[in-house]
Amino acid sequence: MKLISHEDLQNMEQRFRANLINSITGFKSIALIGTQNKTGITNVAIFNSLVHIGANPALIGFIMRPHTVERHTLANILDTNYYTINHIKKSFFKQAHQTSAGFDKTVSEFKACGLTAEYNNDFFAPFVKESDIQLGVAFKEKIDIAINGTSLIIGEIVSIKYPDNCLQTDGYLDIEKAGTIACTGLDAYHTTTNISRLAYAKPNIETNTNIPKYID
Amino acid sequence: MKLISHEDLQNMEQRFRANLINSITGFKSIALIGTQNKTGITNVAIFNSLVHIGANPALIGFIMRPHTVERHTLANILDTNYYTINHIKKSFFKQAHQTSAGFDKTVSEFKACGLTAEYNNDFFAPFVKESDIQLGVAFKEKIDIAINGTSLIIGEIVSIKYPDNCLQTDGYLDIEKAGTIACTGLDAYHTTTNISRLAYAKPNIETNTNIPKYID
Repeated sequence: MKLISHEDLQNMEQRFRANLINSITGFKSIALIGTQNKTGITNVAIFNSLVHIGANPALIGFIMRPHTVERHTLANILDTNYYTINHIKKSFFKQAHQTSAGFDKTVSEFKACGLTAEYNNDFFAPFVKESDIQLGVAFKEKIDIAINGTSLIIGEIVSIKYPDNCLQTDGYLDIEKAGTIACTGLDAYHTTTNISRLAYAKPNIETNTNIPKYID
Repeated sequence: MKLISHEDLQNMEQRFRANLINSITGFKSIALIGTQNKTGITNVAIFNSLVHIGANPALIGFIMRPHTVERHTLANILDTNYYTINHIKKSFFKQAHQTSAGFDKTVSEFKACGLTAEYNNDFFAPFVKESDIQLGVAFKEKIDIAINGTSLIIGEIVSIKYPDNCLQTDGYLDIEKAGTIACTGLDAYHTTTNISRLAYAKPNIETNTNIPKYID
Protein backbone atom coordinates (compact mmCIF):
# COMPACT_ATOMS: atom_id res chain seq x y z
CA MET A 1 0.00 0.00 0.00
CA LYS A 2 1.07 3.59 -0.68
CA LEU A 3 0.08 6.75 1.15
CA ILE A 4 -0.30 10.26 -0.27
CA SER A 5 -0.36 13.00 2.39
CA HIS A 6 -2.03 16.41 2.40
CA GLU A 7 1.37 18.00 1.80
CA ASP A 8 2.03 15.64 -1.14
CA LEU A 9 -1.32 16.66 -2.63
CA GLN A 10 -0.60 20.36 -2.24
CA ASN A 11 2.82 20.07 -3.89
CA MET A 12 1.68 17.83 -6.72
CA GLU A 13 2.05 18.84 -10.37
CA GLN A 14 -1.34 20.26 -11.41
CA ARG A 15 -2.28 17.84 -14.20
CA PHE A 16 -1.11 14.83 -12.17
CA ARG A 17 -3.30 15.93 -9.27
CA ALA A 18 -6.27 16.50 -11.59
CA ASN A 19 -6.00 12.93 -12.89
CA LEU A 20 -5.58 11.50 -9.39
CA ILE A 21 -8.41 13.42 -7.71
CA ASN A 22 -10.76 12.74 -10.59
CA SER A 23 -9.97 9.01 -10.18
CA ILE A 24 -10.54 8.61 -6.47
CA THR A 25 -14.20 9.67 -6.60
CA GLY A 26 -14.95 6.14 -7.86
CA PHE A 27 -16.88 5.04 -10.92
CA LYS A 28 -18.89 7.84 -12.43
CA SER A 29 -21.81 8.20 -14.76
CA ILE A 30 -21.11 9.88 -18.04
CA ALA A 31 -23.71 11.41 -20.27
CA LEU A 32 -24.08 13.81 -23.15
CA ILE A 33 -25.96 16.99 -22.33
CA GLY A 34 -27.78 18.40 -25.34
CA THR A 35 -28.85 22.04 -25.59
CA GLN A 36 -29.78 24.59 -28.22
CA ASN A 37 -29.46 28.35 -28.17
CA LYS A 38 -32.20 30.78 -29.16
CA THR A 39 -30.88 31.06 -32.71
CA GLY A 40 -31.06 27.29 -33.18
CA ILE A 41 -27.38 26.34 -32.86
CA THR A 42 -27.22 22.99 -31.10
CA ASN A 43 -24.61 22.01 -28.54
CA VAL A 44 -23.69 18.67 -27.00
CA ALA A 45 -21.06 18.06 -24.33
CA ILE A 46 -19.93 15.17 -22.17
CA PHE A 47 -20.29 15.43 -18.38
CA ASN A 48 -19.04 13.02 -15.73
CA SER A 49 -20.48 14.58 -12.59
CA LEU A 50 -24.16 13.65 -12.66
CA VAL A 51 -25.63 13.11 -9.23
CA HIS A 52 -29.03 11.99 -7.97
CA ILE A 53 -30.72 14.78 -6.01
CA GLY A 54 -34.17 13.33 -5.37
CA ALA A 55 -36.96 11.15 -6.73
CA ASN A 56 -40.07 13.20 -5.86
CA PRO A 57 -39.86 15.56 -7.65
CA ALA A 58 -37.42 13.73 -9.93
CA LEU A 59 -34.27 15.86 -9.68
CA ILE A 60 -30.84 15.34 -11.19
CA GLY A 61 -27.77 17.51 -10.74
CA PHE A 62 -24.36 18.01 -12.29
CA ILE A 63 -21.32 20.09 -11.41
CA MET A 64 -20.33 22.86 -13.81
CA ARG A 65 -16.69 23.88 -13.66
CA PRO A 66 -15.62 27.49 -14.10
CA HIS A 67 -13.70 28.43 -17.26
CA THR A 68 -14.31 25.40 -19.43
CA VAL A 69 -15.77 24.76 -22.85
CA GLU A 70 -18.82 23.44 -21.09
CA ARG A 71 -19.98 27.00 -20.53
CA HIS A 72 -21.86 26.90 -23.85
CA THR A 73 -24.02 24.26 -22.21
CA LEU A 74 -24.68 26.44 -19.17
CA ALA A 75 -25.41 29.55 -21.24
CA ASN A 76 -27.96 27.62 -23.29
CA ILE A 77 -29.60 26.12 -20.20
CA LEU A 78 -29.93 29.50 -18.51
CA ASP A 79 -31.25 31.11 -21.73
CA THR A 80 -33.73 28.41 -22.76
CA ASN A 81 -34.51 26.42 -19.57
CA TYR A 82 -34.34 22.98 -21.20
CA TYR A 83 -31.69 20.33 -21.80
CA THR A 84 -31.38 16.65 -22.44
CA ILE A 85 -29.26 14.01 -20.70
CA ASN A 86 -28.32 11.08 -22.93
CA HIS A 87 -26.61 7.88 -21.77
CA ILE A 88 -23.45 6.79 -23.61
CA LYS A 89 -22.89 3.34 -25.14
CA LYS A 90 -19.64 1.66 -26.18
CA SER A 91 -20.66 2.04 -29.85
CA PHE A 92 -20.16 5.83 -29.74
CA PHE A 93 -17.91 6.55 -26.75
CA LYS A 94 -15.16 8.08 -28.94
CA GLN A 95 -17.60 10.54 -30.49
CA ALA A 96 -18.90 11.34 -27.01
CA HIS A 97 -15.37 11.97 -25.68
CA GLN A 98 -14.61 14.20 -28.66
CA THR A 99 -17.35 16.64 -27.57
CA SER A 100 -14.98 17.74 -24.77
CA ALA A 101 -12.71 19.44 -27.32
CA GLY A 102 -12.74 23.24 -27.29
CA PHE A 103 -15.01 23.93 -30.23
CA ASP A 104 -15.98 27.48 -31.12
CA LYS A 105 -19.50 28.29 -29.97
CA THR A 106 -20.68 28.74 -33.56
CA VAL A 107 -19.89 25.04 -34.18
CA SER A 108 -22.38 22.31 -33.29
CA GLU A 109 -20.56 19.42 -31.63
CA PHE A 110 -23.24 17.12 -33.07
CA LYS A 111 -21.90 17.64 -36.57
CA ALA A 112 -18.25 18.07 -35.57
CA CYS A 113 -18.20 14.81 -33.58
CA GLY A 114 -20.39 12.57 -35.74
CA LEU A 115 -23.46 12.52 -33.51
CA THR A 116 -27.09 13.05 -34.53
CA ALA A 117 -29.52 15.56 -33.02
CA GLU A 118 -33.12 14.43 -32.80
CA TYR A 119 -36.23 16.10 -31.45
CA ASN A 120 -39.02 14.31 -29.56
CA ASN A 121 -42.53 15.53 -28.78
CA ASP A 122 -41.81 19.25 -29.30
CA PHE A 123 -39.20 19.27 -26.52
CA PHE A 124 -36.99 22.33 -27.14
CA ALA A 125 -33.56 20.77 -26.59
CA PRO A 126 -32.03 18.16 -28.92
CA PHE A 127 -31.62 14.54 -27.88
CA VAL A 128 -28.71 12.38 -29.04
CA LYS A 129 -30.17 9.87 -31.49
CA GLU A 130 -27.38 7.34 -30.87
CA SER A 131 -28.35 7.19 -27.20
CA ASP A 132 -30.95 4.62 -26.07
CA ILE A 133 -31.66 6.23 -22.70
CA GLN A 134 -32.69 9.85 -23.13
CA LEU A 135 -33.92 12.22 -20.43
CA GLY A 136 -35.74 15.50 -21.03
CA VAL A 137 -34.86 17.95 -18.26
CA ALA A 138 -36.26 21.32 -17.15
CA PHE A 139 -33.79 23.63 -15.40
CA LYS A 140 -34.68 24.36 -11.75
CA GLU A 141 -31.76 25.88 -9.87
CA LYS A 142 -28.09 26.90 -10.07
CA ILE A 143 -26.33 26.71 -6.72
CA ASP A 144 -22.92 28.38 -6.62
CA ILE A 145 -20.18 26.62 -4.66
CA ALA A 146 -18.10 29.50 -3.34
CA ILE A 147 -15.14 27.40 -2.20
CA ASN A 148 -13.89 26.82 -5.77
CA GLY A 149 -16.19 28.67 -8.17
CA THR A 150 -18.08 25.62 -9.44
CA SER A 151 -21.86 25.36 -9.58
CA LEU A 152 -24.38 22.62 -8.97
CA ILE A 153 -27.00 22.70 -11.73
CA ILE A 154 -30.28 21.03 -10.79
CA GLY A 155 -33.05 20.07 -13.18
CA GLU A 156 -36.32 18.18 -13.05
CA ILE A 157 -36.68 15.10 -15.24
CA VAL A 158 -39.77 15.54 -17.41
CA SER A 159 -39.40 12.58 -19.78
CA ILE A 160 -37.54 9.27 -19.92
CA LYS A 161 -37.06 7.23 -23.09
CA TYR A 162 -35.60 3.75 -22.63
CA PRO A 163 -35.29 0.47 -24.52
CA ASP A 164 -37.88 -2.28 -24.28
CA ASN A 165 -37.23 -5.03 -21.75
CA CYS A 166 -34.92 -2.99 -19.51
CA LEU A 167 -37.44 -1.97 -16.86
CA GLN A 168 -37.89 -4.33 -13.94
CA THR A 169 -41.21 -4.78 -12.15
CA ASP A 170 -40.17 -2.62 -9.19
CA GLY A 171 -39.05 0.37 -11.29
CA TYR A 172 -35.31 -0.44 -11.44
CA LEU A 173 -34.06 0.37 -14.94
CA ASP A 174 -31.33 -2.06 -16.03
CA ILE A 175 -28.96 0.40 -17.67
CA GLU A 176 -26.29 -2.27 -18.05
CA LYS A 177 -28.69 -4.29 -20.21
CA ALA A 178 -29.34 -1.08 -22.17
CA GLY A 179 -25.61 -0.78 -22.90
CA THR A 180 -24.81 2.29 -20.80
CA ILE A 181 -21.11 2.58 -19.91
CA ALA A 182 -19.29 4.12 -16.93
CA CYS A 183 -16.13 6.20 -16.61
CA THR A 184 -13.26 6.84 -14.24
CA GLY A 185 -10.91 9.78 -14.04
CA LEU A 186 -11.12 12.23 -16.91
CA ASP A 187 -10.81 9.87 -19.86
CA ALA A 188 -11.27 6.17 -19.03
CA TYR A 189 -14.35 4.23 -20.12
CA HIS A 190 -15.69 0.93 -18.77
CA THR A 191 -18.38 -1.63 -19.49
CA THR A 192 -19.91 -3.38 -16.49
CA THR A 193 -20.98 -6.82 -15.30
CA ASN A 194 -23.79 -7.10 -12.81
CA ILE A 195 -22.90 -8.86 -9.56
CA SER A 196 -26.29 -8.76 -7.89
CA ARG A 197 -29.11 -6.68 -6.58
CA LEU A 198 -29.56 -6.91 -2.83
CA ALA A 199 -32.73 -6.72 -0.78
CA TYR A 200 -33.54 -3.63 1.29
CA ALA A 201 -31.28 -3.87 4.33
CA LYS A 202 -32.72 -4.41 7.81
CA PRO A 203 -30.81 -4.73 11.10
CA ASN A 204 -29.94 -8.29 12.11
CA ILE A 205 -31.25 -9.89 8.91
CA GLU A 206 -28.69 -11.30 6.52
CA THR A 207 -28.56 -9.54 3.15
CA ASN A 208 -30.19 -11.50 0.35
CA THR A 209 -30.12 -11.21 -3.38
CA ASN A 210 -33.34 -10.02 -4.88
CA ILE A 211 -33.85 -10.06 -8.62
CA PRO A 212 -37.24 -8.69 -9.71
CA LYS A 213 -38.61 -9.66 -13.11
CA TYR A 214 -38.64 -7.49 -16.19
CA ILE A 215 -41.71 -5.76 -17.57
CA ASP A 216 -42.22 -6.56 -21.24
CA MET B 1 -38.42 2.09 -27.14
CA LYS B 2 -40.74 3.21 -24.37
CA LEU B 3 -41.51 6.74 -23.18
CA ILE B 4 -42.37 7.90 -19.67
CA SER B 5 -43.94 11.38 -19.53
CA HIS B 6 -43.85 14.03 -16.82
CA GLU B 7 -47.43 13.11 -15.92
CA ASP B 8 -46.51 9.41 -15.70
CA LEU B 9 -43.68 10.33 -13.32
CA GLN B 10 -45.90 12.44 -11.12
CA ASN B 11 -48.53 9.69 -10.84
CA MET B 12 -46.07 6.85 -10.28
CA GLU B 13 -46.13 4.73 -7.13
CA GLN B 14 -43.51 6.20 -4.80
CA ARG B 15 -41.14 3.23 -4.42
CA PHE B 16 -41.32 2.44 -8.16
CA ARG B 17 -40.36 6.04 -8.95
CA ALA B 18 -37.52 5.97 -6.41
CA ASN B 19 -36.04 2.89 -8.10
CA LEU B 20 -36.47 4.36 -11.58
CA ILE B 21 -35.05 7.82 -10.85
CA ASN B 22 -32.13 6.38 -8.93
CA SER B 23 -31.37 4.19 -11.98
CA ILE B 24 -31.39 6.81 -14.69
CA THR B 25 -28.54 8.84 -13.18
CA GLY B 26 -26.18 6.25 -14.68
CA PHE B 27 -23.43 4.25 -13.00
CA LYS B 28 -22.53 5.63 -9.61
CA SER B 29 -19.65 5.39 -7.24
CA ILE B 30 -20.36 3.76 -3.93
CA ALA B 31 -18.25 4.13 -0.85
CA LEU B 32 -18.38 3.63 2.87
CA ILE B 33 -18.18 6.81 4.91
CA GLY B 34 -16.58 6.25 8.31
CA THR B 35 -17.08 8.60 11.25
CA GLN B 36 -16.82 8.58 15.02
CA ASN B 37 -18.68 10.65 17.59
CA LYS B 38 -17.05 12.50 20.47
CA THR B 39 -17.69 9.60 22.84
CA GLY B 40 -15.87 7.18 20.56
CA ILE B 41 -18.82 5.34 18.98
CA THR B 42 -17.91 4.59 15.38
CA ASN B 43 -20.30 4.75 12.45
CA VAL B 44 -20.02 3.54 8.88
CA ALA B 45 -22.61 3.99 6.14
CA ILE B 46 -22.82 3.38 2.40
CA PHE B 47 -23.31 6.35 0.07
CA ASN B 48 -23.93 6.32 -3.68
CA SER B 49 -23.86 10.03 -4.46
CA LEU B 50 -20.19 10.97 -4.40
CA VAL B 51 -19.30 13.71 -6.83
CA HIS B 52 -16.03 15.36 -7.85
CA ILE B 53 -16.05 19.05 -6.91
CA GLY B 54 -12.50 20.10 -7.74
CA ALA B 55 -8.85 19.02 -7.84
CA ASN B 56 -7.12 22.11 -6.41
CA PRO B 57 -7.93 22.12 -3.56
CA ALA B 58 -8.92 18.45 -3.73
CA LEU B 59 -12.65 18.53 -2.98
CA ILE B 60 -15.21 15.75 -2.95
CA GLY B 61 -18.93 16.05 -2.30
CA PHE B 62 -21.89 13.83 -1.53
CA ILE B 63 -25.62 14.38 -1.22
CA MET B 64 -27.19 13.88 2.19
CA ARG B 65 -30.88 13.06 2.12
CA PRO B 66 -33.23 14.39 4.77
CA HIS B 67 -34.70 11.97 7.29
CA THR B 68 -32.59 8.88 6.72
CA VAL B 69 -30.38 6.66 8.84
CA GLU B 70 -27.43 8.41 7.27
CA ARG B 71 -27.96 11.35 9.62
CA HIS B 72 -25.65 9.74 12.18
CA THR B 73 -22.93 10.26 9.62
CA LEU B 74 -23.80 13.94 9.20
CA ALA B 75 -24.06 14.57 12.95
CA ASN B 76 -20.61 13.06 13.47
CA ILE B 77 -19.09 15.05 10.60
CA LEU B 78 -20.51 18.34 11.90
CA ASP B 79 -19.40 17.54 15.47
CA THR B 80 -15.89 16.29 14.73
CA ASN B 81 -14.96 17.72 11.30
CA TYR B 82 -13.40 14.52 9.94
CA TYR B 83 -14.56 11.49 7.99
CA THR B 84 -13.19 8.78 5.77
CA ILE B 85 -14.31 7.62 2.31
CA ASN B 86 -13.53 3.97 1.59
CA HIS B 87 -13.94 2.23 -1.78
CA ILE B 88 -15.96 -0.99 -1.88
CA LYS B 89 -14.76 -4.29 -3.37
CA LYS B 90 -16.76 -7.33 -4.45
CA SER B 91 -15.32 -9.27 -1.50
CA PHE B 92 -17.36 -7.22 1.02
CA PHE B 93 -20.21 -5.64 -0.94
CA LYS B 94 -22.88 -7.44 1.12
CA GLN B 95 -21.43 -6.12 4.38
CA ALA B 96 -21.27 -2.66 2.81
CA HIS B 97 -24.92 -2.80 1.69
CA GLN B 98 -25.96 -3.95 5.16
CA THR B 99 -24.72 -0.65 6.65
CA SER B 100 -27.80 0.98 5.06
CA ALA B 101 -30.06 -0.78 7.58
CA GLY B 102 -31.60 1.43 10.25
CA PHE B 103 -29.33 0.69 13.17
CA ASP B 104 -29.76 2.49 16.46
CA LYS B 105 -27.16 5.22 16.92
CA THR B 106 -25.63 3.44 19.89
CA VAL B 107 -24.71 0.54 17.58
CA SER B 108 -21.52 0.64 15.50
CA GLU B 109 -22.26 -0.61 11.99
CA PHE B 110 -18.67 -1.83 11.84
CA LYS B 111 -19.42 -4.57 14.36
CA ALA B 112 -23.04 -5.11 13.30
CA CYS B 113 -22.10 -5.60 9.63
CA GLY B 114 -18.82 -7.50 9.92
CA LEU B 115 -16.48 -4.68 8.93
CA THR B 116 -13.28 -3.61 10.69
CA ALA B 117 -12.43 -0.08 11.87
CA GLU B 118 -8.78 0.91 11.59
CA TYR B 119 -6.95 4.12 12.42
CA ASN B 120 -4.09 5.57 10.40
CA ASN B 121 -1.61 8.28 11.38
CA ASP B 122 -3.69 9.74 14.22
CA PHE B 123 -6.55 10.65 11.85
CA PHE B 124 -9.66 11.04 14.03
CA ALA B 125 -12.16 9.12 11.91
CA PRO B 126 -12.02 5.34 11.38
CA PHE B 127 -11.09 3.82 8.02
CA VAL B 128 -12.57 0.55 6.75
CA LYS B 129 -9.77 -2.01 6.92
CA GLU B 130 -11.34 -4.19 4.19
CA SER B 131 -11.08 -1.26 1.76
CA ASP B 132 -7.92 -0.87 -0.34
CA ILE B 133 -8.57 2.75 -1.38
CA GLN B 134 -9.08 4.94 1.68
CA LEU B 135 -9.47 8.71 1.74
CA GLY B 136 -9.09 10.92 4.81
CA VAL B 137 -11.40 13.92 4.47
CA ALA B 138 -11.75 17.23 6.36
CA PHE B 139 -15.23 18.76 6.32
CA LYS B 140 -15.42 22.12 4.52
CA GLU B 141 -18.98 23.11 3.76
CA LYS B 142 -22.64 22.04 3.94
CA ILE B 143 -24.77 23.56 1.20
CA ASP B 144 -28.51 23.18 1.67
CA ILE B 145 -30.58 22.43 -1.42
CA ALA B 146 -33.87 24.15 -0.67
CA ILE B 147 -35.83 22.53 -3.49
CA ASN B 148 -36.06 19.16 -1.70
CA GLY B 149 -34.34 19.49 1.68
CA THR B 150 -31.17 17.60 0.74
CA SER B 151 -27.65 18.92 1.35
CA LEU B 152 -24.38 18.82 -0.53
CA ILE B 153 -21.58 17.99 1.91
CA ILE B 154 -18.14 19.07 0.69
CA GLY B 155 -14.83 17.98 2.15
CA GLU B 156 -11.15 18.34 1.33
CA ILE B 157 -9.16 15.17 0.74
CA VAL B 158 -6.19 15.17 3.09
CA SER B 159 -4.86 11.63 2.56
CA ILE B 160 -5.11 8.87 -0.04
CA LYS B 161 -4.11 5.25 0.61
CA TYR B 162 -4.06 2.98 -2.45
CA PRO B 163 -2.61 -0.36 -3.53
CA ASP B 164 0.80 -0.69 -5.16
CA ASN B 165 0.87 -0.77 -8.96
CA CYS B 166 -2.45 1.02 -9.47
CA LEU B 167 -1.13 4.54 -10.06
CA GLN B 168 -0.28 5.44 -13.67
CA THR B 169 2.52 7.82 -14.58
CA ASP B 170 0.15 10.73 -15.26
CA GLY B 171 -1.70 10.49 -11.93
CA TYR B 172 -4.65 8.36 -13.10
CA LEU B 173 -5.44 5.83 -10.38
CA ASP B 174 -6.68 2.55 -11.86
CA ILE B 175 -9.51 1.81 -9.43
CA GLU B 176 -10.71 -1.09 -11.56
CA LYS B 177 -7.33 -2.78 -11.04
CA ALA B 178 -7.72 -2.04 -7.33
CA GLY B 179 -11.03 -3.94 -7.33
CA THR B 180 -13.41 -1.02 -6.72
CA ILE B 181 -16.99 -1.76 -7.82
CA ALA B 182 -19.81 0.48 -9.10
CA CYS B 183 -23.52 0.59 -8.43
CA THR B 184 -26.79 1.44 -10.13
CA GLY B 185 -30.13 2.30 -8.63
CA LEU B 186 -30.44 1.77 -4.91
CA ASP B 187 -29.20 -1.80 -4.61
CA ALA B 188 -27.40 -3.14 -7.72
CA TYR B 189 -23.66 -3.75 -7.76
CA HIS B 190 -21.34 -4.15 -10.77
CA THR B 191 -17.76 -5.01 -11.59
CA THR B 192 -16.23 -3.26 -14.59
CA THR B 193 -14.08 -3.96 -17.64
CA ASN B 194 -11.90 -1.19 -19.02
CA ILE B 195 -12.58 -0.29 -22.65
CA SER B 196 -9.91 2.35 -23.08
CA ARG B 197 -8.50 5.64 -21.97
CA LEU B 198 -8.70 8.35 -24.61
CA ALA B 199 -6.32 11.23 -25.29
CA TYR B 200 -7.27 14.80 -24.36
CA ALA B 201 -9.73 15.87 -27.06
CA LYS B 202 -8.89 18.62 -29.53
CA PRO B 203 -11.07 19.95 -32.36
CA ASN B 204 -10.55 18.26 -35.74
CA ILE B 205 -8.14 15.63 -34.43
CA GLU B 206 -9.39 12.07 -34.27
CA THR B 207 -9.60 10.63 -30.74
CA ASN B 208 -6.80 8.23 -29.88
CA THR B 209 -6.29 5.72 -27.16
CA ASN B 210 -3.63 6.69 -24.69
CA ILE B 211 -2.47 4.23 -22.06
CA PRO B 212 0.17 5.69 -19.72
CA LYS B 213 2.45 3.30 -17.85
CA TYR B 214 2.11 2.40 -14.19
CA ILE B 215 4.35 3.72 -11.43
CA ASP B 216 5.79 0.87 -9.36
